[in-house]
Amino acid sequence: MSALKPAKVGVRTRIFQIIFESDTPLAKGFDILLAILIFFSVAIVMLDSVREYHERFGTIFYYTEWVITLLFTLELALRVYCLEKPRLYLKSFYGIVDVLAVLPTWLVLVFPGAQTLVVFRLLRTLRLFRVLEMMALVGQGRLLLDALARSRGQILLFLFSVLMFVTVFSSLLYLIEPREAGFTSIPKSIYWGIVTLTTVGYGDVTPVTPLGQFISVMIMLSGYSIIALPAGVFSAEVIRSLRQERYSDEACPGCGKHQHERDARYCKYCGTWLNEEVAAPEPPESQ
Amino acid sequence: MSALKPAKVGVRTRIFQIIFESDTPLAKGFDILLAILIFFSVAIVMLDSVREYHERFGTIFYYTEWVITLLFTLELALRVYCLEKPRLYLKSFYGIVDVLAVLPTWLVLVFPGAQTLVVFRLLRTLRLFRVLEMMALVGQGRLLLDALARSRGQILLFLFSVLMFVTVFSSLLYLIEPREAGFTSIPKSIYWGIVTLTTVGYGDVTPVTPLGQFISVMIMLSGYSIIALPAGVFSAEVIRSLRQERYSDEACPGCGKHQHERDARYCKYCGTWLNEEVAAPEPPESQ
Amino acid sequence: MSALKPAKVGVRTRIFQIIFESDTPLAKGFDILLAILIFFSVAIVMLDSVREYHERFGTIFYYTEWVITLLFTLELALRVYCLEKPRLYLKSFYGIVDVLAVLPTWLVLVFPGAQTLVVFRLLRTLRLFRVLEMMALVGQGRLLLDALARSRGQILLFLFSVLMFVTVFSSLLYLIEPREAGFTSIPKSIYWGIVTLTTVGYGDVTPVTPLGQFISVMIMLSGYSIIALPAGVFSAEVIRSLRQERYSDEACPGCGKHQHERDARYCKYCGTWLNEEVAAPEPPESQ
Amino acid sequence: MSALKPAKVGVRTRIFQIIFESDTPLAKGFDILLAILIFFSVAIVMLDSVREYHERFGTIFYYTEWVITLLFTLELALRVYCLEKPRLYLKSFYGIVDVLAVLPTWLVLVFPGAQTLVVFRLLRTLRLFRVLEMMALVGQGRLLLDALARSRGQILLFLFSVLMFVTVFSSLLYLIEPREAGFTSIPKSIYWGIVTLTTVGYGDVTPVTPLGQFISVMIMLSGYSIIALPAGVFSAEVIRSLRQERYSDEACPGCGKHQHERDARYCKYCGTWLNEEVAAPEPPESQ
Repeated sequence: MSALKPAKVGVRTRIFQIIFESDTPLAKGFDILLAILIFFSVAIVMLDSVREYHERFGTIFYYTEWVITLLFTLELALRVYCLEKPRLYLKSFYGIVDVLAVLPTWLVLVFPGAQTLVVFRLLRTLRLFRVLEMMALVGQGRLLLDALARSRGQILLFLFSVLMFVTVFSSLLYLIEPREAGFTSIPKSIYWGIVTLTTVGYGDVTPVTPLGQFISVMIMLSGYSIIALPAGVFSAEVIRSLRQERYSDEACPGCGKHQHERDARYCKYCGTWLNEEVAAPEPPESQ
Repeated sequence: MSALKPAKVGVRTRIFQIIFESDTPLAKGFDILLAILIFFSVAIVMLDSVREYHERFGTIFYYTEWVITLLFTLELALRVYCLEKPRLYLKSFYGIVDVLAVLPTWLVLVFPGAQTLVVFRLLRTLRLFRVLEMMALVGQGRLLLDALARSRGQILLFLFSVLMFVTVFSSLLYLIEPREAGFTSIPKSIYWGIVTLTTVGYGDVTPVTPLGQFISVMIMLSGYSIIALPAGVFSAEVIRSLRQERYSDEACPGCGKHQHERDARYCKYCGTWLNEEVAAPEPPESQ
Repeated sequence: MSALKPAKVGVRTRIFQIIFESDTPLAKGFDILLAILIFFSVAIVMLDSVREYHERFGTIFYYTEWVITLLFTLELALRVYCLEKPRLYLKSFYGIVDVLAVLPTWLVLVFPGAQTLVVFRLLRTLRLFRVLEMMALVGQGRLLLDALARSRGQILLFLFSVLMFVTVFSSLLYLIEPREAGFTSIPKSIYWGIVTLTTVGYGDVTPVTPLGQFISVMIMLSGYSIIALPAGVFSAEVIRSLRQERYSDEACPGCGKHQHERDARYCKYCGTWLNEEVAAPEPPESQ
Repeated sequence: MSALKPAKVGVRTRIFQIIFESDTPLAKGFDILLAILIFFSVAIVMLDSVREYHERFGTIFYYTEWVITLLFTLELALRVYCLEKPRLYLKSFYGIVDVLAVLPTWLVLVFPGAQTLVVFRLLRTLRLFRVLEMMALVGQGRLLLDALARSRGQILLFLFSVLMFVTVFSSLLYLIEPREAGFTSIPKSIYWGIVTLTTVGYGDVTPVTPLGQFISVMIMLSGYSIIALPAGVFSAEVIRSLRQERYSDEACPGCGKHQHERDARYCKYCGTWLNEEVAAPEPPESQ
């Protein structure tokens, strides 16, 4: 989004500042208004999917949907209008989401079945993160995301190993269990294996032979034990993040020792002034 | 509760001390007696809801309930009587709970259907925390609550992201799955999504199409992986709490500042030698 | 068990050493033999409960059971014989288990229905911990148990709060949901609540009303978030145990600093000899 | 695998280098090609197990399977051909897997039913770890495996205790619950117990009596609480691994010992000044 640039004409620049940025009161107001509108439009899509409400309030929903679609279309038009290179925006993730949010209602005029695609409007809720950002809540999540990013490699490897393990054992159950128990194909058995290992356990497919139940129990106990692995890795990463946040990387110019807290001014081991760019103040009399 | 003040007349002050405080033996005895009575009344409400017991012991339950209601009403009257500003109490959380605990039984005299509302009496069990407090158990939970309070922001953000994720994918399943599989509306699909992600997995709604099962498996593996996040954050916070023990309580003799790590020898703010019992070593030449 | 004392006669003392202790080769052999016999007897009880095996091998099981019962009875008789105060043993936990292990088979001679009580023999598997102790595996679990013991208060408080929470919300569902959905009484609703919160999710009782499903979702998300709490507390305790294992509590006699590793001989901050009871060796030339 | 040695003839040595090693571009290319082929063959086995695809593309699958089998047989022949002692390879784990991957298709020529055994080909996916190793992803998992290996003893003890606990309580439910509820034998009850404790909760066997439900609830709450134990142990081990980074790699110039913490100034074993770049300060008077 930061790559997008406003057109140089005055009005378009001002619209850009309101819609794409969020540092002026007007821009913040726009973001909040948009968040409310998105929330409202999502609520309508959800309620309209409930048959009872659809039957009773169908007409109201229909017209409200058109009003929202028109407002979203206007917003989309303004976004395209105020940008120097609108194509860059239209090909970006948020651009596609914004188009998907209005397209279905317009398509209905041509293809009546397109109505159900209106659920793609739900993706616009992702814009709500913008408001959260203003509420400084996202900043708190930075630590979480950092730790997650650093443990990503290990968690991916973990998931790959888990999938391998599940594939081998699920195929065994495909051989052992009768087709009537639900193990109708290897992919279906793998579906059952993951439902079991993640401890979801729907019960739509369950082993019925003693041998199958024995192998299932092995899978469950494995799942129960190894669920600790990502938790352990992630805990360790969060703790590491918190520690790095606290200690400075720089060494003391006096004794070369590390592990000074970021707010330290003097070395805690030898008393040397740590900040070399500024002269040390006169020592207090007590020394 | 601490805002509540006793009336200034002698008897009422004494009643206040017994009912609202818990530092005299009599007050402690009252708290324990009340805890037993609440426990007993809750047990009766529960047993009466079982049809068999209701049929066999219904009459006994009926009279016991009236005795308990009368005792609770007396307690409520005493609470109101001994307070200077009873309204403040009646509008507080515990005041409302205390009124809700006796109201249903009285209401039955007017509206026979009010009987089922007696379950609100269960809320009185919250008063049991009072007894736990005396048992010094709650003090142990302080650390837990502190860590929970500090990680609240991150956990809320986590829940919000999880809900967003579930909403988008559940809507997809609403499009893919046939209505007969239970995905009758978007809210119902979201219900299914949360049942799946949290690994509860009732099995009342389950995907039947291969594509739906594939997406379900993605949701399960995500839930299985990201359940580590709150655990990680929370572990880190508990450990941070325990670390607080790492800081010495003593102030620097030079500048009076606190928060020196236990292994610090010089004040990190002013460079003063911290250990007054031993003389400071000669500064190294490099200074 | 340590309170039990052998009779003073020679033969009985020797039997005591073999049966109750485990420091001689003969005593170890007895423990291992007993472990095998227990394992074997448990396997027979289990297999005999499977109808097919019972029909086919019932007679063999019957005689094997009698052989095992006779051996266990002999063992019990020896235990009673070799002790000075056999009553103390018969009233101890293991004594009761040992009697329960042989009683059902003997009782069958009088009451034919007593056969099913033979499952109490399974409790004897607890004696297997004795063998594990010899394998030094239990020692590894000491750290676990220590951390568990220290976090017990917090985990109990946690469980109590969880039960309170579940009781209040389950009662709400008892009011909201129709009896046909399975919420037939408050205790049954609490059963459902715990099945849901612990993410077991059998699906034998599931909410069918939208409001009930909404409240269920709240319970699930709570369960999903707070499951982190005991894990966090416990992790912190294990980490604290590991740390205490590593650092000595004693301060350096030279500079008064703490946090010396247990294998340290000189202070890492000032180079002072740490072990005051022994004289320091001559300093190496490099100093 | 490292024990396998190539034959000394030139061509066979070159084949050995391509097939068994992975340090030349050709060998890497072979590994990647093999990974793709394995992935492809696995996909075909899976798709062929789905009845619809089998009916529609059965013939294509049949011929592709033969092509893959021939390629795998050729690979197997080359592996055997280029080794000095092929028997050692054929008796190794990967050797058996490689034979199992081609045997079923050949067996069909003799026994038509052998077709289903083709699922053993899935085991070949384990060779994919070879490619991951090249992608340096496995190296990231080393930390995980180290921590897992160190906590293995504790986790095994934990699993053993859990199994004991489940066995005793499941047998109780076998006594309490009617056979119609699914508790038809003790092993079946133990299956139910593990399904419950691990929070999988299929719902194919559920308690129906109040007492049975009460005991189930105890098992669930135990499972919910003790799941924290392996996570705690494992977290602590990962953190301990990360701490290893806390130790400096440098040896003491006095005694040559390692394992000095990064903030150590003097050797904890012999008291020598560790930082050779800076002169040691004068020893404090107290020494």
